[in-house]
Amino acid sequence: MKDILIKNVDIITPKGIIENGCIVVDNGVFDYVGEQKEEILKAAYKNIMDKKNMMAAPGLVNAHTHSAMVLLRNFSNDYPINKWLFDYIIPAENRLSSEDIYWGTTLAIAEMIQSGTTAFLDMYLHMERVAEAVSETGIKACLSKDVIKSQVRNNQVVIDKEGFKQFYDQWHNFDNRIKVNTEIHSVFLYDKASLIEAANVAKAFNTSIHIHILEGVGERKMSMEMHKMSPLEACLEYGILDVPVTAAHCIHLEGRDLELIKKKNIIPVHNPSSNLILGSGIAPIVEMMEKEKIPVALGTDGAASNNNLNMFEEMHMASLIHKGLHMNPELMKAGDVLTMATVNGAKALGFNNTGEIQEGKEADLILVDLNKPHLQPFRNHLSAMVYSVQASDVDTTLVNGKILMEKRELKTVDIEKAMAYIKEFKI
Amino acid sequence: MKDILIKNVDIITPKGIIENGCIVVDNGVFDYVGEQKEEILKAAYKNIMDKKNMMAAPGLVNAHTHSAMVLLRNFSNDYPINKWLFDYIIPAENRLSSEDIYWGTTLAIAEMIQSGTTAFLDMYLHMERVAEAVSETGIKACLSKDVIKSQVRNNQVVIDKEGFKQFYDQWHNFDNRIKVNTEIHSVFLYDKASLIEAANVAKAFNTSIHIHILEGVGERKMSMEMHKMSPLEACLEYGILDVPVTAAHCIHLEGRDLELIKKKNIIPVHNPSSNLILGSGIAPIVEMMEKEKIPVALGTDGAASNNNLNMFEEMHMASLIHKGLHMNPELMKAGDVLTMATVNGAKALGFNNTGEIQEGKEADLILVDLNKPHLQPFRNHLSAMVYSVQASDVDTTLVNGKILMEKRELKTVDIEKAMAYIKEFKI
Repeated sequence: MKDILIKNVDIITPKGIIENGCIVVDNGVFDYVGEQKEEILKAAYKNIMDKKNMMAAPGLVNAHTHSAMVLLRNFSNDYPINKWLFDYIIPAENRLSSEDIYWGTTLAIAEMIQSGTTAFLDMYLHMERVAEAVSETGIKACLSKDVIKSQVRNNQVVIDKEGFKQFYDQWHNFDNRIKVNTEIHSVFLYDKASLIEAANVAKAFNTSIHIHILEGVGERKMSMEMHKMSPLEACLEYGILDVPVTAAHCIHLEGRDLELIKKKNIIPVHNPSSNLILGSGIAPIVEMMEKEKIPVALGTDGAASNNNLNMFEEMHMASLIHKGLHMNPELMKAGDVLTMATVNGAKALGFNNTGEIQEGKEADLILVDLNKPHLQPFRNHLSAMVYSVQASDVDTTLVNGKILMEKRELKTVDIEKAMAYIKEFKI
Repeated sequence: MKDILIKNVDIITPKGIIENGCIVVDNGVFDYVGEQKEEILKAAYKNIMDKKNMMAAPGLVNAHTHSAMVLLRNFSNDYPINKWLFDYIIPAENRLSSEDIYWGTTLAIAEMIQSGTTAFLDMYLHMERVAEAVSETGIKACLSKDVIKSQVRNNQVVIDKEGFKQFYDQWHNFDNRIKVNTEIHSVFLYDKASLIEAANVAKAFNTSIHIHILEGVGERKMSMEMHKMSPLEACLEYGILDVPVTAAHCIHLEGRDLELIKKKNIIPVHNPSSNLILGSGIAPIVEMMEKEKIPVALGTDGAASNNNLNMFEEMHMASLIHKGLHMNPELMKAGDVLTMATVNGAKALGFNNTGEIQEGKEADLILVDLNKPHLQPFRNHLSAMVYSVQASDVDTTLVNGKILMEKRELKTVDIEKAMAYIKEFKI
C-alpha cells in the first residue's frame, strides 16, 4: 500500500499546470503526478487527502537565513546599519545561550512550516542546537558550520577542523534531509590564511561554501584594504571558488564580479526585504537572472532585518521591486520568481532532487487553500502564488512525504512549549 | 449600559502604546481609552470582549482603489502597460455588468474587512451598486462619482450633474459612514470645458475631488499636448485645486509640482505595489513626506494591478522600498507608515474624526492576534504592525463601533453567496 494520495488538486509542475489532478507520494518521493486516472484513485493508500479547491505547489526554499534571529524580531528597526549592528544585534547575540538558539530555531521552523517553507539554508551560532531543532521538526535544511573560530582582529586564528568534522559526521545526510556545508561568514572579517584554511576544509569534506558577498556598500573597500583584492577576487585567489558557493546578497557588483559569478557557477541569493530595510541597496537581479541566466535563489535573511521568515512576501518583493525599478512589468515574471524560490533555492542548498513536483523527486510540497476572498476569482496559478497568496493560505506542508502541517495544525513542532519559552525569553 | 468593553489589550494611540489597557465603545465612538481602571472594568456593557494577547490598532484606510477590480485579479500580469490596459483591462471592463460590480465590490469589502481595512476611497463603474454593497456591509467609504460622461476623443461631452446630484443626495452622509466626492479620472482624458464643469460640480456640492495624477511617465506629455500645461497646472487653471484634492500616484513630479501639492494641500496617495507591478515607477514619497511634511496617504489601487487589497502588504512595501532606494533605514519609519495608512488616509477620504484610537473619535479599529509564531517574541508594536503582522492576524474589525468581523468570522457580508457568484463569474 502506497503512502499518500492527494486528490482533486491543481498542481504546479515544471511542465505546466495540471488542473484537478492528483499526486501519489510513496517512500518520501512523488510516485505519481498527473491526471486523476481511475486506477490511481481506486488503489489503496495509508492516507487519502481530498484537497478540493487547493493548489499543490513545490515547497518554498529559504536560501539564506539565520533562523534563530527570530529572537531579535523587531528588536532594532529604523536605525542606521552601524547602530543596528554594533549597538543592538551583536551585543544581544553575545547574550544568547545555546538553549535560546534551540528554541529560537524551533520557533523559526514553526513559522517557516506555517508559511510554506520546506527547506532552508542556515548560518548562525550553536549550530549543534540548530541541527537538533531541524532533526526533531522534520524540515529540510543545509546547515552552514563555521571553521574559523577567531576573527583577525583578535590576532589569533583557530581553524576548528575537528569541530567541523564532528558536526559533519553527526549531521550530514541525516534522515536524507540535513546537509552540512562550510560557513565562511565573509572575506572582510578574516585574514588570508584563515580563508585559505576554511576553503581547504570545504574541499576536504567536499562541501559547498555559504558566504556573504557585497551586502554592504563598504565591503569592497574593506576587502581592498585587507586583501588588496575585491571580495570575489579574494574568494578566487584563496580557493573558495574551487567548491560550489552560495553567496548571499551580491548587491554592489562591479568590474569582474558578474563574470566571476557566472564563470564559477556561484549561486547568488537575493534577500530583498533585508537589503531594503537595512538600506543596503538593491541587488542587480535583472542583470544576473534575465541577462546572464544565473540561477539566483531567494532568502529572507534573519528576522532581525526583515522582520519575518515569510517567503511569499519575499517572492512578492522580488518581483515587484525590480519591475518598478526598471519600469518594466515584463521583468521578473511570476514563474521566474517561483523558480528562484523553489528550484534555484534547492540548488543553493545542494538538494538536487527537489524543488519541483515531478515523479521521482523528493515529496516537498505545500497545499494552498484557494477558497479565500482574496484569491477569488481564481485564475493564473503562478501569478496567484507570487502576487496574491498569503502565508496563512498554506493548509498543508509536506517534507520528504511527511506531513509537517495539515489544516494549519503543526504536527512535528511542540509550538506551545516553544511559545512558552519565547514568552519568558529576555534579551 | 454602554455598548462594548474591549479589555486586556495593548493599544496603539496617538500618544503612545498603552499596554494591557481597555477600550470602551459607545454610540459608535471611543468612550474610554486607557488603563484598566476598576470602575471601568466593573461597569455593565452590552458586549464584553476579553482580547488578551491582542493589540488594538486604528483601522487601516485604503485611500485609493477601484474595489470591484478584484474581478480582474491575476487577469493580466507581467505584460507591458499598454497591453495590460488596452488588450485586457478595458475590454474586460466593458463586459462587466452592474451585477458583477455589486458582487465584486462585496467580495472586495470581505477581503478588506479580513485584512483590517475599515475605510476606502473608491473610483469605478456603476457607483450606485458600489454604494449598495458598502451600505449593506457596514464598512466606511468615500465614493467618487463621475460627472463627465464622455471622453474627449468621442467629440461629445456630457456633464451629468443631475446623475451626480441623485447619487449625492442618496448616499452622502449615509449612516455616518459614506461620503460622496467628485471623480475626475485624470486631466489627459478630458478637454478644458469638461474639466472646468466637473470642478464646478465639486464646488457646487462642496465635495473634494479624487483624481489620478502623474501615474504614467507619458502623462505630462499628453497634458502638454492637450492643455499646453502640466497636469497639476491644468488642475490649478481649471479650478480643480479650488476644492480639497486627493491625488493618486504623483510619481513623475517635476518643476512646480511639489510646490503646488504643498500650497494647495493636495493629499497624494502612494500605491507602491501597483506602481511597481505596472512598472510605472516609484513616487518621491521621501521628498513629499519627510522633506515637505505633506500628509501622504496609502492605497492598494485596484486588484488588477496588485493583485490584492492588503494594506499590511502596502505598508510593508511603502517602508521598505524607500529605505532601500535611498539606502537609508532611518527613512519611512514604522510609525510614519502607519500614519499614512490611518490618519492621513482618513484625511484623504474626508473623514476627519477617525484614524486614531482616541476618546471621542469614531470607533474604527482592528484587533490583531499576537499569539502567532511569526509575531514572537513580541516587542515594538509599531514595527510589528508594519514589518511582521500578516493580514490574517486580524481577529476583529470594528467600524463606527459595529463588529464587522470577530474571530475572523465576517458578520455583515454573505460571503458564501458572494463566493458562489464569483465562481460562476466569467469575463
